[in-house]
Amino acid sequence: MDTIRIGIVGYGNLGRGVELAIRSNPDMKPAFIATRRDPASLQPKTADVPVYAYDTLEQHRNEADVVILCGGSATDLPQQTPTLAKWFHVVDSFDTHACIPEHFTAVNAAANETNHTALISCGWDPGMFSLARLYGNCILPDGKDYTFWGKGISQGHSDAIRRVEGVQDARQYTIPIQAAMDAVRNGEQPELTTRQKHLRECFVVAKPGADLAKIEHDIRTMENYFAEYDTVVHFISEEELKANHSEIPHGGFVMRSGVSGENGEHKHLIEYSLKLDSNPEFTTNVLVAFARAVARFAAEGSFGCKTVFDVPPAYLSPLSGDTLRATML
Amino acid sequence: MDTIRIGIVGYGNLGRGVELAIRSNPDMKPAFIATRRDPASLQPKTADVPVYAYDTLEQHRNEADVVILCGGSATDLPQQTPTLAKWFHVVDSFDTHACIPEHFTAVNAAANETNHTALISCGWDPGMFSLARLYGNCILPDGKDYTFWGKGISQGHSDAIRRVEGVQDARQYTIPIQAAMDAVRNGEQPELTTRQKHLRECFVVAKPGADLAKIEHDIRTMENYFAEYDTVVHFISEEELKANHSEIPHGGFVMRSGVSGENGEHKHLIEYSLKLDSNPEFTTNVLVAFARAVARFAAEGSFGCKTVFDVPPAYLSPLSGDTLRATML
Repeated sequence: MDTIRIGIVGYGNLGRGVELAIRSNPDMKPAFIATRRDPASLQPKTADVPVYAYDTLEQHRNEADVVILCGGSATDLPQQTPTLAKWFHVVDSFDTHACIPEHFTAVNAAANETNHTALISCGWDPGMFSLARLYGNCILPDGKDYTFWGKGISQGHSDAIRRVEGVQDARQYTIPIQAAMDAVRNGEQPELTTRQKHLRECFVVAKPGADLAKIEHDIRTMENYFAEYDTVVHFISEEELKANHSEIPHGGFVMRSGVSGENGEHKHLIEYSLKLDSNPEFTTNVLVAFARAVARFAAEGSFGCKTVFDVPPAYLSPLSGDTLRATML
Repeated sequence: MDTIRIGIVGYGNLGRGVELAIRSNPDMKPAFIATRRDPASLQPKTADVPVYAYDTLEQHRNEADVVILCGGSATDLPQQTPTLAKWFHVVDSFDTHACIPEHFTAVNAAANETNHTALISCGWDPGMFSLARLYGNCILPDGKDYTFWGKGISQGHSDAIRRVEGVQDARQYTIPIQAAMDAVRNGEQPELTTRQKHLRECFVVAKPGADLAKIEHDIRTMENYFAEYDTVVHFISEEELKANHSEIPHGGFVMRSGVSGENGEHKHLIEYSLKLDSNPEFTTNVLVAFARAVARFAAEGSFGCKTVFDVPPAYLSPLSGDTLRATML
């Protein structure tokens, strides 16, 4: 297969991560970066990569083999993925779990109409964690699933704190609760409440003169974000936030606890875990590997919308079937 | 899809495990059990399942949708899988890693000649651990692989001890070394010797009057099995062996330690682990899930030999794509 030309749409944390990830994959090269900002304002890390205005992408439809969409799930991807799937083979990281079926339908229609291949909801959750859940369910049908997230930064919860009156900046860590994980690992198959699974730890920079007790109360009682959890709030200085909380680590654990035997007498635990220094860079590494699979599907004429569930694992690798069987099986 | 009829060839630990595993998969039923022993000597756990002599299998070629071969890798499968792939769609658990390419070639030729689908080397290693290695390599190309086995019974090493003069019975546990796993988890990417990765612990019942010191020496210096390892030998009574060491637990850990960023400044760890009360029953659960995928491949006319690397994960599930996307993605 020729070098796979990757188009990058959006140049925030994910877009920059894709650009870096391509460097570790010698069978790929960046084709272009597209942005809704002024293209002249971008400083790509790669020499000689053209930067295009998002609105001109249709005229560059022959310049990329696969386009990776690096926008957000709230407003960018629901609009961009179906649009770009008319012109390109595409991969996105759409991660609003409840809206995946709707997004799939829209992207599938657009891709099928023009014989393109699209892969949505790729990353680590949804993505690698979804695969761990699916494999676990199929192998241990008599069992129970558990997903724990963290320790890591939740961007959504950090943003929610920043909207509280009197808050200047904040970072929120999601922390899995050890006792709950231990119970699952012991094969107890516990029923766990939201509060029993995760703790929320907040590092908050208050505005000068703000009412700290009120900020803490407003955070801890915020519906949908903190009310259902045990929440710890620390007030720190701006300098401390920058020094100790400017990275974006994350990770988590998917466990499947199941039984086999004549009377379920044998317990089994399957555990898949990630410990990531950089959430966006790991996500983009996953996106880039699945972009290779999209190029394969497109080359064999397999069009429409797919997810990680539809991808034969060998399609992620640049190596031949012979080599994979000889070295990794 | 109609109920998948599963033929079981061989009725040892694996064959009995397949029979039990089918009970947890309502879209499957046992079609027959085949044996090289006297069929009348078998006592299936399932009522009304016919037991056939192995040599008569060709005449039952229309009675199973997929046949799971439950023989051993040393002498059974190299001969049986290519033979049965002429009459059936088949799955085996061939686990002699070094001989997989040769086995693949033989099975592929037989299956293609007669339009059958075969899936070889399915279980947990090779199998689920191979998948963990492949996914890890593709997602973190700048990284290093580690596989640790145990704590669990190694049948091969237990058998090797039983061949030592003066030994009546024995069980050998393979134990991963915690310090080595910790170093990998810390992102140190250590170079580890065989001795640094695993410890071998042996529980031995000596024959009356045997020379214990000589037995211990013979075990600890045995080439290919123990000489490269730190080995601990315990002499125990037959009763103790039966009471405490008659189960067949196993498990292990596949880790991929990698980096991302402009200068590899962000570390990532992917870890897949299994903790199994029954090695054969877990293996058969994997075989049965992949038998479903073989039935799908066969139904769509995708023939020849495949491995776990070629299977879209969704093919392992009885659920529809819509349901999988809505519930597990």
